[in-house]
Amino acid sequence: MKVAVLGTGGGARAHAARLVELGHEVFTGTRDVRATLARTEPDMMGNVPYGQWLADHPGVTLLPFADAAAASDGLVINGIDGHNARAALASIADRLAGKTLIDYAVPYVYQYETEHPWPTPWGVMPKLDPCDTDSLAERIQRALPDTKVVKSFVTQEQTTVVDPAAVGGGDHTMFVAGDHADAKQQADELLRSYGWSDILDLGPLVCARGMEMYAHMHSAIGFGLGHRFGGAFGIKVVR
Amino acid sequence: MKVAVLGTGGGARAHAARLVELGHEVFTGTRDVRATLARTEPDMMGNVPYGQWLADHPGVTLLPFADAAAASDGLVINGIDGHNARAALASIADRLAGKTLIDYAVPYVYQYETEHPWPTPWGVMPKLDPCDTDSLAERIQRALPDTKVVKSFVTQEQTTVVDPAAVGGGDHTMFVAGDHADAKQQADELLRSYGWSDILDLGPLVCARGMEMYAHMHSAIGFGLGHRFGGAFGIKVVR
Repeated sequence: MKVAVLGTGGGARAHAARLVELGHEVFTGTRDVRATLARTEPDMMGNVPYGQWLADHPGVTLLPFADAAAASDGLVINGIDGHNARAALASIADRLAGKTLIDYAVPYVYQYETEHPWPTPWGVMPKLDPCDTDSLAERIQRALPDTKVVKSFVTQEQTTVVDPAAVGGGDHTMFVAGDHADAKQQADELLRSYGWSDILDLGPLVCARGMEMYAHMHSAIGFGLGHRFGGAFGIKVVR
Repeated sequence: MKVAVLGTGGGARAHAARLVELGHEVFTGTRDVRATLARTEPDMMGNVPYGQWLADHPGVTLLPFADAAAASDGLVINGIDGHNARAALASIADRLAGKTLIDYAVPYVYQYETEHPWPTPWGVMPKLDPCDTDSLAERIQRALPDTKVVKSFVTQEQTTVVDPAAVGGGDHTMFVAGDHADAKQQADELLRSYGWSDILDLGPLVCARGMEMYAHMHSAIGFGLGHRFGGAFGIKVVR
């Protein structure tokens, strides 16, 4: 397939690399190709400059967001950060029409000065907006009425999403939610190609609220296990 | 031990019955003993009238909240619903001083008319208050500075909290969070006596935010599995 992966962070890179490995043509999207390629320093998460990463991944083509979305023949993965995702996606709504968009963003708001800061062992935690009575995924779906939005991947580090066997032999649970059964089927097939076997359909996209709000629990579990950012673990729904 | 269990709902009953089974003296607390015993109809969750339940559980003594708390020799379980818990507990702060309080309440607000109702497959979902930048457990701790508050149990139906083997042979994960190591140790011992072996300490009480916010994910998983209210499942942290 021709798959678009929007975003250039660590999660987007993990998906792009794995998709190439699986034989897909991959088009990654960024706001400004020249600016992305001009960076020579690691990003805030310590990832190598994108140009350097791209040189090591010859099956990946970097394009502006709109062109990457247009190049997809049906499947688009949103790896744009939660704070910017909706506006960026809405600006290319026409290129996303008729396609399936799998979103894994967490709607973090990095407000370090708040009335109730998050005094965690690992410092101040970003808060979520929206939260509880709405979700980023629903907002994206409302902004893209002709696109089929699926929320998935968000309950894991993306490096384990594309390689579930890295944790516990792969016997843990991935979740999907969305209002379009055929789009969830596409997500399910993609996840199986990544190596997932336990994929639980939570139901309509409103269930993305719980998936996004799980972010703080995910962080707490990671730190409870003694990890710093990005440790490898999963959760298994035990029936 | 002499253990107090505050509240008369299904969760509180599950803990009280199990604690008696384990050989403890159990004092359950209610706002108004006469009113509780006067009920002749099942409660909103379908539980039999409390007086009838009490007749079947001879090791349990029903008392007003303050007296039940005073009767405890160190451990109190909060089974008062999230909306009322803080005020009820604050009103008996002197009886809770020096003791460990394990709280499993979810701070649901039953507001069925909101700007953004929760259009789930199972109807309108209560929202959470507090949420994200504070938690009920932290609020309770601030209201009870001389009590050691531990958040636990909240990520499961209480019937499986007291009987983890009912799900997957018991191989799933229970979480604790709190600012007092000795109180978390008491919670850990109680959980082991219930049958838990995988108990993950998430860290300080601020981690209760993630545990309480997991409520929507818990509901979504339950309904994804095809349960109606209260299905038996757990989550296992897979390392």
